[in-house]
Order: sequence, then C-alpha cells, then structure tokens
Amino acid sequence: MAEEISSKVFEAHPMNGGDGPNSYAKNSIYQRRVVDIAKELMNKAILEKLDIDMSNTFYIADLGCSVGPNTFYSVENILETVRSKYQIQGQKSQISEFQVFFNDHAENDFNMLFKSLPQNRQYFAVGVPGSFHDRLFPNASIHIVHCSYAIQWLSRVPEAVVDSSSSAWNKGRIHYSNSTDEVIRAYETQCSEDMECFLHSRAQEIVYGGLIILTIPGRPDGTPHSLSQANMTLQFLGSCLMDMAEKGDVSEEKVDSFNIPMYTMSPQELKAAVERNGCFSIEIMSELPHQSITNTISLSQLLASHLRAGMEGIVKQHFGEDIIDELFDLYQNKCEENASIFKLGKSLSFLAVLRRIAD
Amino acid sequence: MAEEISSKVFEAHPMNGGDGPNSYAKNSIYQRRVVDIAKELMNKAILEKLDIDMSNTFYIADLGCSVGPNTFYSVENILETVRSKYQIQGQKSQISEFQVFFNDHAENDFNMLFKSLPQNRQYFAVGVPGSFHDRLFPNASIHIVHCSYAIQWLSRVPEAVVDSSSSAWNKGRIHYSNSTDEVIRAYETQCSEDMECFLHSRAQEIVYGGLIILTIPGRPDGTPHSLSQANMTLQFLGSCLMDMAEKGDVSEEKVDSFNIPMYTMSPQELKAAVERNGCFSIEIMSELPHQSITNTISLSQLLASHLRAGMEGIVKQHFGEDIIDELFDLYQNKCEENASIFKLGKSLSFLAVLRRIAD
Repeated sequence: MAEEISSKVFEAHPMNGGDGPNSYAKNSIYQRRVVDIAKELMNKAILEKLDIDMSNTFYIADLGCSVGPNTFYSVENILETVRSKYQIQGQKSQISEFQVFFNDHAENDFNMLFKSLPQNRQYFAVGVPGSFHDRLFPNASIHIVHCSYAIQWLSRVPEAVVDSSSSAWNKGRIHYSNSTDEVIRAYETQCSEDMECFLHSRAQEIVYGGLIILTIPGRPDGTPHSLSQANMTLQFLGSCLMDMAEKGDVSEEKVDSFNIPMYTMSPQELKAAVERNGCFSIEIMSELPHQSITNTISLSQLLASHLRAGMEGIVKQHFGEDIIDELFDLYQNKCEENASIFKLGKSLSFLAVLRRIAD
Repeated sequence: MAEEISSKVFEAHPMNGGDGPNSYAKNSIYQRRVVDIAKELMNKAILEKLDIDMSNTFYIADLGCSVGPNTFYSVENILETVRSKYQIQGQKSQISEFQVFFNDHAENDFNMLFKSLPQNRQYFAVGVPGSFHDRLFPNASIHIVHCSYAIQWLSRVPEAVVDSSSSAWNKGRIHYSNSTDEVIRAYETQCSEDMECFLHSRAQEIVYGGLIILTIPGRPDGTPHSLSQANMTLQFLGSCLMDMAEKGDVSEEKVDSFNIPMYTMSPQELKAAVERNGCFSIEIMSELPHQSITNTISLSQLLASHLRAGMEGIVKQHFGEDIIDELFDLYQNKCEENASIFKLGKSLSFLAVLRRIAD
C-alpha cells in the first residue's frame, strides 16, 4: 500500500451538530421513519441474502451516519437480525461479537455522536472520519454496509456549474433540477463518477456475500428532475436566495456561485451504476411505502426544519451566519405559498440491497 | 455476547482540547520527547519480540491518544517499523494495509483529533471512544497496543478517600502521595484493580504474539510516593488549592472532596500486575534516559503549562472555571519557590513491552 490513504479532498457538509432546536438530532424524524419503513425489507435481505463465511466477529458499517440517533436504530436492527439469522441456523456460538463503524466526514460532530452512544449497546463502537466516495476500511473487512439517506450527497459541486465561462454555468440557481441541459448533464456525470468511486471502494472492503443496504431519497423512473419533490425543495430554497438577492440582502454573485452538491437518483440510474461496477448483484430494489407524518406542525414547517437541519451548514459556509434565520423563514413561507405546486411533484424513497459477488 | 458493552461508568478527564495556548496539543512537548526517547527501544521490541501469524491487515491501537499530534508520531513509527520488519523477512506482500484505532474517553475532543489526522497517512484511521479499563475491541483483533503516558490515570478516585466517615478520608489534600497510609493503600488498591481490568481486557483483544507497549511516568523502585517528582507536582497543586481555601477563594470542603485519580507506578508494581494477570510475558522493562528539555522558558513555566493542559479539565469540573487562571499562576510561583525541594525528588520514565502468550 504505497499510496496515501485519504489524501483526496472532498467537500464536507455535516448536518447540524449538537442537540439544539435546529440540530439534525432533533430534526431527522423523516429519516427515522424511513428507517422504520425499510426495516422489514432490510431484515428480509439480511435473513435471505447475506451469505458469508462465518467469523467470530461481525463487522457493520453505517456510512454517512451523522450524529444519531437514527444511526443507532438502524445498527441495532441490523445486529438483532444478524443475531437471529445465525441463531436460526444453529450457529449461535460462532458470532460472539459485533464491531460497528460509524462513518461520516471528519467535519461531522463525532463528539456528540460518541457521547450519545446507547449505554446498553451490545457492540464495540468505532468512529471513522472520511468520505464514503473513497476507501474507509481495509480489504474484505466489513460484512454489512448500511447507508441511509446519504448517497444523494455528491462528493463535490461539478466544476463547470460555477465557472462563468462554461456553458454549464448555473447562474441564478443553486441546483441542477430546474436548470439547463448542460447543468443537468454536469450533475449527472458527477453522480455517475461518485457512484463509481463508492462502489469501487466498497467492493474492496466488503467480504464476498456481504451486503450494501441503501435507502435513497429518489426520483421515480421517467420523472423529470424538475418534478422530483426532493429537488423542488431545493428549487424553493434557490428561489428564496434569489428573492433575497433582489432585495439586496445577499449579492447575486454569491447566489450564482452557490450550488448544492446533491443528486436525486432514479432506481434505473442506480441499477446502471451497479452494472457498470460489476462487483455486486442487485438482490432487492424496492420502493418504500409513502410516509404519512402525522404531527402537530404543518408540512411547510416540517420541510423548513428538516431542510435547515441538513442545509444550514453548507449555506453558512457560503453566505455567512447572518442570513440563516431570514432565509429559512422565507423558505417556510415559500413552501406554504407553493404547497399546491409541491403536491404535483413526485417523490420516491427506495431501498436497494446489493450483494458482493466473488470476482 | 449477552452482556452489554461499556455500560460501566468511568471517570473521564480529557486533556485540554482545541489548539489554543493552553491546549494539550500545544503543551505536550514533554510527552513528545518521551515518544522520541522510547523510539529506539520500541522499534527493537517490534523487530525482535512481535511474533504473530501474518494477516493482510495489521491492526494498531493507541490507548489514551488524546487529541494529537503525539499519537500520530507514535503510530507512524510503529507502522514503519512493522513494515520494515516484514520487508526484512521477505513477507512484504503479506501486510498490505494498516488500520489504526485511536482510543480515548468519549469526552476527548475527537473532532479535533479527526481534523488533524495527517493528510498523507498510510493507514485507515478510526476513533474508539471508551475507557481502556474496559473492553474496547473484539477478541483477538489487535496486533500492537501502544499506550504512552496514560496508564497513570486511574479509572476513578477511590471511594474511601472522599468519604468523611472513612479512615482513608483525604482531608486537605488532593493526592495520596503526601497523605496517610490509609489513603496510600486506597490508591494502591485502585491501581491494582485498574491494572487487572486493563490487562484482562487487552488479553482478550490482542492476538497471540502481539504486543503491549507502555511508556509510563513512574517512580523508581523503593522511592517513597512523596518523593516522586510526578507526585510532587500534584502536591504543589494541592498546596495551592489549600492556600486559596485559606484566602477564601475556594471552600475548604471543595478541596477536601477533590482528589486526582492518578497513580505513579514503580516498575516493580507493573511487574507484579503482569504476573498476577498471567497472559503476558515481560519482554522489555527499561528506564528511559532523562530528558533535558532545553528551551527558552523556565522549568516552573514548563511544569505549569504542562500541568494546566492535563489538569484544567478535572479542576474545572470540580471548582468551576473562575479559579483556573489564579490557580495555575499560583502554581507556577509555587514551583519556583520550591525548585530546590523539587530537585530532591526522583523521577523515572520507563518503557514496558509485554507479549501476549498463548493460553
């Protein structure tokens, strides 16, 4: 291993740390529901599709884990299912211990993650700083990789979209989904390259017969980028920033140079990436039932608080702290005004289970 | 593994985080010198004493790593030595990757540690929150454990020394070393129990033929606790607190209930602990040459800045933030006034290399 590990530079946009009112920890109920909804399918995949040579220790990695608590629910569910699988098969004595690797960018609030680790956990907990678009683990050292609502983050903004001399310059917008074909292509290419890096790295790290379990906020096959609800929330945010630029609260140049490195894949796009990589079989690819989040706050409040928990960091990094409250207040209003348009959009969460096949 | 992992509660007293003027990162030059001085012996131990079945991945753990940068130097030195050992033996192709586990209490500043990881590192880096007096890793999963200037921290203050109804109540002092026989015995017992937990845990985690490399701020065999220089620095700190209590700047009760959970072992005590445990052979037990720290600041300044970087956390926890500056200014004066007494004390840094022997 002469090459350096992790010398590449990736953009990192951690979720809001701590446990304050705008924290990711307090504003990730949507993602938690996804975990709950995906549970049954995940368990089925582990029971039926995991097919590894047994060892005494079972290794689980959660990639893009953020600060918890969702990551703890996911990991415990996987652990219990693996345990029951091998109990059923009468191999109980073989797996005696679990080690869980919690991964996110080095900028993630690992201090908070470590302090909130469940006291009664039945696994050895470890934090792994780094981008999942690169290698994170030694060869053949992981049995199950879980990655929930994280793979939509690209490794970076495609260069061309912030280059004013490029035909893919994304002036006046912060996302590709309501933009020109050139911008869309730049994002598509970035996503494709990132998935190649992701799958190439995992192919080395996961044992034969081991699994990648992905839950993805996606776009139904055939739906235009502009009509994906996940994308529409970012279009609204961009439109708020342009409103602020018109009022002079932020400079238009600042908005022009701001782009969100997030891409909403369709199941078909994921399939294509897996086939190009060639090291994994697709064992499950399934739409998750729509979530009805019943609670006391309105949809627009919910969208605003969730978007803020996820996006405050990247917005602050570019625009500074001062605009945050105004921006997310505006955003909530924009969501209310455009509720009927939003409902015309399509949304899709899907679960994919990939199995590492022997070379 | 029905039992819960890490449900026990240990006291955690992290070194000063961040990279400010009082940070551990900026005030651990003494510990760095120990690393440098110990290097030759460590390398010899790895070259001659490490005797493991080879695997593709080599696993190193640094226990009580704090926030860096010393931990990075140590780990890189170990890694290079292991690499050259197996190159010499013509087994280069076998070890292709290294994974390094950086361990400290969950209260340690892992965010800082992760952000300062060397960019050009040739290993997969992982953070492990938890007390090294308990299990941290799966069975037989580590090849070399390194623990430098950390084992002197006890898992907790012995209960009796803060119990005013006990004969071991440590009134008016913050350490055992200048105290009654009862207090000394309470600390000795705690150290003995802690070493049992430490070695018992490591015996499960380290592969047969793997090594524990310890550097320890110790007390020469036969030297009374009160005449160990490491202990004298804590006696001076206690005496400053009592001065402040007399002036009314802190309450005497607060001082009575404050004790530093740190024990300065002699080589003989370590030997006894290893023999009681029975899972390790002592391969090297060697005094490290005395360090002459040549620099522009005085010994008292150096003692004060190092003690502050290590002790500010535990002092703050007990007394609050307000007394810190006054206390460490007083402390520096106390060191100056008592320089001649301090020089009568004995100090000893020693290195111990233990090898896991087959059961």
